[in-house]
Amino acid sequence: MPRLAIIGLGLIGGSLGLAIKRAQPEGLEIAGFDREHGIGGRARKAGAIDIEARDPASAVEGAAIVVVATPISQVRTAFEAIEPALGEGTVVTDTASTKGEVIRWARECLPDGVSFVGGHPMAGKEMSGLGAAEPALFDGQAWAITPTANTPVRAIQTVESLVRLVGARAVVVDPHEHDTYVAAVSHLPLVAASAMFALLSGSQAWPDLAALAGPGLRDTTRLASTDPDLSHDISLTNRENIAHWLDRFIDELRRWRTLVADETRAEELAKALFEVQAKRNAFLESPPKHPEPESENQTLTSGEQMLSFMMGEYVVRRTKEMSELLEGKAEDGRESHR
Amino acid sequence: MPRLAIIGLGLIGGSLGLAIKRAQPEGLEIAGFDREHGIGGRARKAGAIDIEARDPASAVEGAAIVVVATPISQVRTAFEAIEPALGEGTVVTDTASTKGEVIRWARECLPDGVSFVGGHPMAGKEMSGLGAAEPALFDGQAWAITPTANTPVRAIQTVESLVRLVGARAVVVDPHEHDTYVAAVSHLPLVAASAMFALLSGSQAWPDLAALAGPGLRDTTRLASTDPDLSHDISLTNRENIAHWLDRFIDELRRWRTLVADETRAEELAKALFEVQAKRNAFLESPPKHPEPESENQTLTSGEQMLSFMMGEYVVRRTKEMSELLEGKAEDGRESHR
Repeated sequence: MPRLAIIGLGLIGGSLGLAIKRAQPEGLEIAGFDREHGIGGRARKAGAIDIEARDPASAVEGAAIVVVATPISQVRTAFEAIEPALGEGTVVTDTASTKGEVIRWARECLPDGVSFVGGHPMAGKEMSGLGAAEPALFDGQAWAITPTANTPVRAIQTVESLVRLVGARAVVVDPHEHDTYVAAVSHLPLVAASAMFALLSGSQAWPDLAALAGPGLRDTTRLASTDPDLSHDISLTNRENIAHWLDRFIDELRRWRTLVADETRAEELAKALFEVQAKRNAFLESPPKHPEPESENQTLTSGEQMLSFMMGEYVVRRTKEMSELLEGKAEDGRESHR
Repeated sequence: MPRLAIIGLGLIGGSLGLAIKRAQPEGLEIAGFDREHGIGGRARKAGAIDIEARDPASAVEGAAIVVVATPISQVRTAFEAIEPALGEGTVVTDTASTKGEVIRWARECLPDGVSFVGGHPMAGKEMSGLGAAEPALFDGQAWAITPTANTPVRAIQTVESLVRLVGARAVVVDPHEHDTYVAAVSHLPLVAASAMFALLSGSQAWPDLAALAGPGLRDTTRLASTDPDLSHDISLTNRENIAHWLDRFIDELRRWRTLVADETRAEELAKALFEVQAKRNAFLESPPKHPEPESENQTLTSGEQMLSFMMGEYVVRRTKEMSELLEGKAEDGRESHR
């Protein structure tokens, strides 16, 4: 049976398993591993994975797709751990928030014959860990896919199909551009929210401020509740881009400060407020659409497409290198007529 | 029957009427007026008010409590319009986001014998207008009450009871402090969200940024969708305080920018991220509680308390000046044994 492996069963890895299961792709088994004791078993009981692997290498053995969903700081270790067990033609992807370092690690650690395609679901919430996982986490959200010039098209398509299968919107983007863009739309908000909450909660008036705080402050600073390990990983692996956007934000805030403080610029302020509301409402009203799938298989569902791509890789791999192992696993004989 | 009047039936005025009705205070009628044609009728049909008044003065005639829920820029005009019809002992409050100017206008426009107590519900949402009104808008949210040294205690208690009646948390605060505090917890987030969205949506890369934007950016910039008239009113009436907090925020962002950009300060950054998450989680886990009512009527419900305070004012006013008018209205005789 085609296998998908998930390494790291936290909010993202757990939600991924649940979302795949929700789509009920026929004849796919999910193996999972988490380095924290007990998480694998809980993920299996929660229905996020079928097989709890005892180590990363066992999880990826015989897998056509491997998703590394660990924190960024553990991605390199995960690559090293799975490397010996990866079969020819396997597609490896990840879910880390920054891509520059991850792609370097993939190049250094993963064997030839394995295709790495970076991935990054633009989804999350205040809580982290398997307990917060939910099948709908990715619904309608962007999921960046970051191939390089050398990535085989089929590997990109495989990951695109997986992304669609779990309800997300695949956005294919150059890894370098990805890191610049997410610095703007994800990391700038994260640092700004953290700075704002640090400023207010560090103020002497905080008890009075807290008593008056409403939903506006809560929403604006929601990202300050992000898992600090994740925020730290992001900051260290996307330093220059975040600093660049922080500089631009500080300049923009200075401009608004002048508009607010200068009585003679009330009209300009009104115009700026009107424009930003109109732009944001336009953004909310026409969110980016799912791009049409570019493959020839227009009539297939995402699940069927993914399985079709997986089967392609799977057959290549199997016939080439792992026939014995896989034959031993084909208990139910379904492979024979595929 | 005791009357409460609401001038301005938008998101706040409409929600206030619906929230009072939800509490079903016995023997209270709500009169309402909105200067926009047709809104009064819609508010009556929606169950937010009982009586649609033809002008502000008719709405407040015979009212024990008047709530001016217009935009800040119309509060002074509303005060002038209701002034001739306000009876002795009436409590007037408002819902404007800044209090300095409003209190000055109340002093200038409202007659002696009428008690003004500023109010400000810390609630709202992206949409404005009666169509967005909902009875639960104030549930659990702070509602600032801003008496001055001259405000009679009974008038403060009346507004406190109204606030509790609609499910909100009364926070009594000096008007000057109010404007400083909300500049921090409400207006700073508003301007910061607007500046951030203006920066990103004005960028050449915006189509690419928008394609990748996730729930984090949406939440962080939600306040950029605030009604621009409201934002402008707020900015013009709380200029210095907002500029002050913007300056402090810019300094704080500079500090975070250094922590992110400087490789040697990774540990300090980790500490800052850890602390801000812990502080925000503590804030979410133990939100400010409803203060215990300070009145002697500890066993009464908020509705009963409000009616009791209202009745106090009501009786004073009635016996003094409006006995004939009110006797004509006392159809059900319930007043006699209260």
